[in-house]
Amino acid sequence: MNAEIIAIGSEMLTPFRQDTNSLYLTEKLNLLGVEVIFKTIVGDSLAHLTQAASLALSRADIAIFMGGLGPTEDDLTREAVAEALGLELRRDPEVVAWLEQRFAARGWKMAANNLKQADVITGGVVLPNANGSAPGQWISGKYEGREKIVILLPGPPHELKALFEEHCVERLRAKIPLQFIATRELKITGIGESHCDARVAPIYKRFTDVQTTILAGAGEIQLHLRSRAGSLDTAQKRVDELVEKIEEELGDLVFSDNGDSMEQIVGYYLQMRNATLAVAESCTGGLIGQRITSVSGSSRYFVGGAIVYSDQLKTALAGVSAELIKKHGAVSGETAAALAEGIRKRCATTFGLGVTGVAGPTGGTAEKPVGLVFHALASETGTEVVERRFAGDRKRIRWFASQQALDMVRRRLL
Amino acid sequence: MNAEIIAIGSEMLTPFRQDTNSLYLTEKLNLLGVEVIFKTIVGDSLAHLTQAASLALSRADIAIFMGGLGPTEDDLTREAVAEALGLELRRDPEVVAWLEQRFAARGWKMAANNLKQADVITGGVVLPNANGSAPGQWISGKYEGREKIVILLPGPPHELKALFEEHCVERLRAKIPLQFIATRELKITGIGESHCDARVAPIYKRFTDVQTTILAGAGEIQLHLRSRAGSLDTAQKRVDELVEKIEEELGDLVFSDNGDSMEQIVGYYLQMRNATLAVAESCTGGLIGQRITSVSGSSRYFVGGAIVYSDQLKTALAGVSAELIKKHGAVSGETAAALAEGIRKRCATTFGLGVTGVAGPTGGTAEKPVGLVFHALASETGTEVVERRFAGDRKRIRWFASQQALDMVRRRLL
Repeated sequence: MNAEIIAIGSEMLTPFRQDTNSLYLTEKLNLLGVEVIFKTIVGDSLAHLTQAASLALSRADIAIFMGGLGPTEDDLTREAVAEALGLELRRDPEVVAWLEQRFAARGWKMAANNLKQADVITGGVVLPNANGSAPGQWISGKYEGREKIVILLPGPPHELKALFEEHCVERLRAKIPLQFIATRELKITGIGESHCDARVAPIYKRFTDVQTTILAGAGEIQLHLRSRAGSLDTAQKRVDELVEKIEEELGDLVFSDNGDSMEQIVGYYLQMRNATLAVAESCTGGLIGQRITSVSGSSRYFVGGAIVYSDQLKTALAGVSAELIKKHGAVSGETAAALAEGIRKRCATTFGLGVTGVAGPTGGTAEKPVGLVFHALASETGTEVVERRFAGDRKRIRWFASQQALDMVRRRLL
Repeated sequence: MNAEIIAIGSEMLTPFRQDTNSLYLTEKLNLLGVEVIFKTIVGDSLAHLTQAASLALSRADIAIFMGGLGPTEDDLTREAVAEALGLELRRDPEVVAWLEQRFAARGWKMAANNLKQADVITGGVVLPNANGSAPGQWISGKYEGREKIVILLPGPPHELKALFEEHCVERLRAKIPLQFIATRELKITGIGESHCDARVAPIYKRFTDVQTTILAGAGEIQLHLRSRAGSLDTAQKRVDELVEKIEEELGDLVFSDNGDSMEQIVGYYLQMRNATLAVAESCTGGLIGQRITSVSGSSRYFVGGAIVYSDQLKTALAGVSAELIKKHGAVSGETAAALAEGIRKRCATTFGLGVTGVAGPTGGTAEKPVGLVFHALASETGTEVVERRFAGDRKRIRWFASQQALDMVRRRLL
């Protein structure tokens, strides 16, 4: 079975806002064995919306409409879908009562236009919305001789997700031939996309029953694997086999085989070894600390550190001697090493990370160009320094530098 | 005139990837006076793509196709659009020569399938791609009796943007009745969306010739204003008048009236006053430093500071006495103030920022719940402490805390 997702709202036809609900819905639909074949974004126009609805009904088994269920005159999804289906809207007294109660409970007076939200397409099932005043609707039946499922969902993401989870997943499962689907997500760093694909394509192409999507992000590559089979066991086994073969080929370039982020993985490893970490960040300006502490519970292995944007602070907070900076420059392997060692000592941790570089777009020289970054990891056994030259803008260079630094910790703990 | 944007690629029908090019294109089209009425996302299927192309031609004046211009068998945009237009593809010898030269210059052998990229729709103009091997195409003429413009663009964002800028903007301008459009973007913090809208809606509703979009982001509200008139002067004047009236109503809740970010604004103000800043971050873990240093040139006013995730570091790096922490707790106004004062002293800056709180989801207590954050700003004239209780998840709480902290610096410098 296949689906079309229709996102409704004129704000999604501006340069400022984008539909993101469809990513969530696509994931849920894929796990039920449903492929998404079209996504349409349409504004709050009855004519456009009715046209989009007719079209979706004509070309997909399942049509899911998101948004346009509010009480204002711009909220036209109910009307448009009813029109496309050739069905009537009728005001549902139970929904009216529920709306009145909802308003009364908050001590608000319900405006007359809210009654619109009680209009239900003939034969439709009302899907209660636990987080808002716009209920969803489920309509299933024949359209032009073919079995169709039509779902109306509210636009706000938290309302949509809760409602879909609670009222749609099981209903869909009952309508869809039983399938078993297993997924895995591998994350890879330290290799470019084309080299990575050249190495893994020959492997995943042999697994014709596993759908593989390769995506390049900032400083990492993601491999999304999905297998469908007659039993969950078989599906899982096929995905796992492919994961194993890819890991054999790529070795420790694979940092995660369950979708965890680099900062989560580094956290696991540090905790497992009872180790602690401190950072001294120059060009990343706090990004590494921010990433590590984005993980709840990171205080078990991360103590903090210093943002040493000025040379004075490299000395004052991380104990790097002013002579060393003068001799080698703030952007140098020597300074990176001294930052890592200094912050480790100052914070009394197992590991110290030091990062210094030229994030650009200004400040580069022939000798020390934009993108040049030195990363150092200090521990009891010594200090490792890695020099990298990253391409791209300031944001990208800083992100890559943070990824490289975290990956050094991971590799040390492998 | 209106436009439909069609994004092509099966990866955009997965849960992992999304069209973002259309935001850029919508901005450019809006500035030419063109409204986007539909966006369609379609996979690499000739039937689906041809259907989407026919539909776009039937309902929009301008149809812009993004992606599917590569050399592989999945790249079907040329074929589908030609089919929908009822036109032929012919191999363009000049493009063939250009492709051969491009490959030869890199010392690569050109595979036969690359010749596909030289197939041009009859009557189409080739749009050279400076950044890749897939040229764009421009077709304009009658379709079913109405004047239409069809544009084929490569999918990779940097290729698309450069090509559209260089080869499409002027061509479109020549086809579109001359219009003058002025835009402004206001950013507002310290007030919720509904309260903000209640205060500004009565104002912007009087400006019926200025299109106003209100968007709530994390810790800020954006007001996008766009005016269209017979002269640029008139358009600009109307937008400026509305900006003035909104600023009168909201006062210093407006932190930017040209789209600049909070970290940019804080940077301007610090530089203007020849002031410097240092931070001591506990629950934000480096986020404030990361935001400040995301602005190029921030070393002129930002020296760095400390990430004081553990209590020991609050003492060691920011000079907060262990007794004070013991007495009031790490999450307290007293600790925030001591962090701000300590880091200011340690770093010898004009201002010191201290932030400590419970980012959650764990670690909250009845007395100090998740979301409670203390922010302190220290200067020569004293220390200001602000206590806030933010709702939401860890990421949102940390972002709001960083926004509040930066806004304290802005307000002090107003």
